[in-house]
Amino acid sequence: MSRAVDLNSDVGESFGAWTLGDDTHVLDHVTSANVACGFHAGDPQIMLATVRAARDRGVAVGAHPGYPDLVGFGRRAMTCTPDEVYALCLYQIGALAALCRAEGVPLCHVKAHGALYNQSARDPDLARALARATRDAAPALILLGLPRSQHEAAARETSVPFAAEAFADRAYQADGSLVARAHEGSVLHDPETIATRVIRMVTEETVETMQGEVVTIRADSICIHGDNPAACQILETVRRALDKAGVHVSPLREVLSL
Amino acid sequence: MSRAVDLNSDVGESFGAWTLGDDTHVLDHVTSANVACGFHAGDPQIMLATVRAARDRGVAVGAHPGYPDLVGFGRRAMTCTPDEVYALCLYQIGALAALCRAEGVPLCHVKAHGALYNQSARDPDLARALARATRDAAPALILLGLPRSQHEAAARETSVPFAAEAFADRAYQADGSLVARAHEGSVLHDPETIATRVIRMVTEETVETMQGEVVTIRADSICIHGDNPAACQILETVRRALDKAGVHVSPLREVLSL
Amino acid sequence: MSRAVDLNSDVGESFGAWTLGDDTHVLDHVTSANVACGFHAGDPQIMLATVRAARDRGVAVGAHPGYPDLVGFGRRAMTCTPDEVYALCLYQIGALAALCRAEGVPLCHVKAHGALYNQSARDPDLARALARATRDAAPALILLGLPRSQHEAAARETSVPFAAEAFADRAYQADGSLVARAHEGSVLHDPETIATRVIRMVTEETVETMQGEVVTIRADSICIHGDNPAACQILETVRRALDKAGVHVSPLREVLSL
Amino acid sequence: MSRAVDLNSDVGESFGAWTLGDDTHVLDHVTSANVACGFHAGDPQIMLATVRAARDRGVAVGAHPGYPDLVGFGRRAMTCTPDEVYALCLYQIGALAALCRAEGVPLCHVKAHGALYNQSARDPDLARALARATRDAAPALILLGLPRSQHEAAARETSVPFAAEAFADRAYQADGSLVARAHEGSVLHDPETIATRVIRMVTEETVETMQGEVVTIRADSICIHGDNPAACQILETVRRALDKAGVHVSPLREVLSL
Repeated sequence: MSRAVDLNSDVGESFGAWTLGDDTHVLDHVTSANVACGFHAGDPQIMLATVRAARDRGVAVGAHPGYPDLVGFGRRAMTCTPDEVYALCLYQIGALAALCRAEGVPLCHVKAHGALYNQSARDPDLARALARATRDAAPALILLGLPRSQHEAAARETSVPFAAEAFADRAYQADGSLVARAHEGSVLHDPETIATRVIRMVTEETVETMQGEVVTIRADSICIHGDNPAACQILETVRRALDKAGVHVSPLREVLSL
Repeated sequence: MSRAVDLNSDVGESFGAWTLGDDTHVLDHVTSANVACGFHAGDPQIMLATVRAARDRGVAVGAHPGYPDLVGFGRRAMTCTPDEVYALCLYQIGALAALCRAEGVPLCHVKAHGALYNQSARDPDLARALARATRDAAPALILLGLPRSQHEAAARETSVPFAAEAFADRAYQADGSLVARAHEGSVLHDPETIATRVIRMVTEETVETMQGEVVTIRADSICIHGDNPAACQILETVRRALDKAGVHVSPLREVLSL
Repeated sequence: MSRAVDLNSDVGESFGAWTLGDDTHVLDHVTSANVACGFHAGDPQIMLATVRAARDRGVAVGAHPGYPDLVGFGRRAMTCTPDEVYALCLYQIGALAALCRAEGVPLCHVKAHGALYNQSARDPDLARALARATRDAAPALILLGLPRSQHEAAARETSVPFAAEAFADRAYQADGSLVARAHEGSVLHDPETIATRVIRMVTEETVETMQGEVVTIRADSICIHGDNPAACQILETVRRALDKAGVHVSPLREVLSL
Repeated sequence: MSRAVDLNSDVGESFGAWTLGDDTHVLDHVTSANVACGFHAGDPQIMLATVRAARDRGVAVGAHPGYPDLVGFGRRAMTCTPDEVYALCLYQIGALAALCRAEGVPLCHVKAHGALYNQSARDPDLARALARATRDAAPALILLGLPRSQHEAAARETSVPFAAEAFADRAYQADGSLVARAHEGSVLHDPETIATRVIRMVTEETVETMQGEVVTIRADSICIHGDNPAACQILETVRRALDKAGVHVSPLREVLSL
């Protein structure tokens, strides 16, 4: 039985005169691109260039909304109300949707960024705000999030298609949540280790936790971060391993049969 | 022969904890609302509340994109390239379009704000960037701008429906351009004077310039500023005068027979 | 035995085109002004105008640094590191110090704003960052903060003069902390009730908590908020009550005998 | 007769998660560092780290204030009033001054950035605002600017010590102004050509214009940009050439005998 999986990565995280990551290389290897929307990173011109680069490579485009915290790159927890989260997600998704429309590209999915991702994975009200914005901003958007978290519950409640993602390079806890970045060992760096882990996630639906326990995990999409030095090598190694294991790397919409 | 005209005003210009203008009152009197899009004023929650308030009163909603200059309220000239203007207009129009979609409200028009309005009225490249963004961001948007300016030329060239606006409370020059705000006498304040002027604009298609010359002017829409103390009284006086003169005050789409 | 107390209020909270509060009136009644420093409110021109207005009335000037969260008015909790807090406080205090220098006004104190105030009152590392910035940014600054909180501990540890403040219009808990704004009844509005409460704070050093218990409280300065509609009336009523009770309303430096 | 000259470079132009330039390498070669102050680049933590890095290498620290235009890196012309420029310069210089005070480093000079530099070099009112802010923000600051421009006139008028700078890698016009960046050939790239040019600037006080004419030029300091790929090689080549020519590379204060 063949298995399909999407590969997603965060792109468009440059800003003004500042460049971050090697988007061109990343886009050569993934099937879904999460495009920063101007609040934690990205600006209108960079977003437009990123949409074009994704389109030219047949990579599906998703919105990657974050908190209004440019200097903190959207990684600092903030106490926003659900109404604030709903409005700021609608705003950012809509901004990207217009850039996609201008380039003749469909907007496919939404994935929250940084602290917004983490806080909404735990808080049902924030998750609901995110899911409702995904439903309301544009037609037929998929919410890409953490399985077994409030993301999944809110998507179901709001009738928004949900895609489960697993993180190739992050350590897991027994309940399926991620080990916080601040912890030693929370981010993996060795391409071969990461690739082996991804294959197991996709073909066996399991992952070994930081404590060494094997737990089940579900992954419609594998997230590979593009903002670390080894990103390109990791991407190539993972992609090669997936091909060798006979896994079809396909856009989210195909993986979900939508 | 009856005549129809739209009344437009800039709204949603509050930001975070700060309130500007009396939008509720303004929306009770106009037929088109230009909603600030977060760059020179407005934030996602305020934009959403403004769209709701317009919808509840049957007022047509338009996007009011500006330069990324919050502290200067978008009124300072900036040397942005046409590519920058195109991208920042797409972004802002798209953000508002998503908020409108969430509220079940059609987005009707685009009107540039402040320095972006003035610079694009004179510069054909900036005007073209604005018109192209209006064409590309969402379907069937009308560009509301200064007649006989680069706004009109760019709309024609880009096949975007154009609506000509006249300013109720601003002094004019012989070539149809506005007297700069810095000049003494550039902004009118007396409600009766303004109302008489508007009636003449709409029924005779003329305006008296600052130098006393009578020149022709075309107005599908009359702009009345909401951010001055007398705004409410001016709006009421103008509206009453238009009714008395038998002018139909109707949304832009009806005035243009679109 | 006569007693002296300082009256402080937050001012300079306008931004760009937006006005907040009636600073002129507030400055006519207080002895210390906490001037917003551009991160949560205020901009360089408004700060300069506020320093001038304080100087013209003999009101002592203090810095009121906040989180970099303009749209949230610095009221949203954020997870900044102590190093971030130290640097952003130094930056804001220094900016105001230069404006004071330009106007020939001494910078007297520092009081954190909003979420930065609340979080640093509870977190010893953030409090220490705030106190160190107060010590390092300019000579001889007083830290104005919550007595019996981490503010006071950090000031002592850092050898920064500490001034205890009590809030005229906020409900208290038994441990001397404030009832959160979100709670019903957390903010008092009646001028006479507030004035009576202030007199008791100053002359008896007690306050009645929300639960009706009488607890001791220490106040070198009384904070009166200027951003509510009744602010002016509250200020006048409190000031009159203090005069009648024979309390000397004096700047912080005199109250502390520095 | 020996000659002395200062070498200055713009540093601290990273922001949040984004890195720009190789400041460590630049600071190993220059004698004056122009530190970005948070409006066009830089944030409080980066500013603090930059001040420390300069101090550790004995490099003199100056403030590099710019327009409030982060996304445009302060390179877009803006129509700010002189009062706005005065206040925003005071603010930025003061912020850096406090960070310097915390690190025990004297703040030595002020050099405007990007569009603020160019506009104030031509406009006497903006130049006066810049010079007055330099005089008022902190004691004994030197204004580093373009000789024979409004910078020099305003410094004289305001009694602020003026240091003339020449640009190692920029093409000149006959009147001593720079060829705009947009022009082909406006920026030089070859290290040897640049070094030869610098030696001539310092020892003969002349430069060859874009049209091939030799004109006089005065340079207390040579600016070398750190944000181009060849920056390090250019710095090393220039420094070596100066040493070989017997020119003393010394901090601004020594060059001016202050």
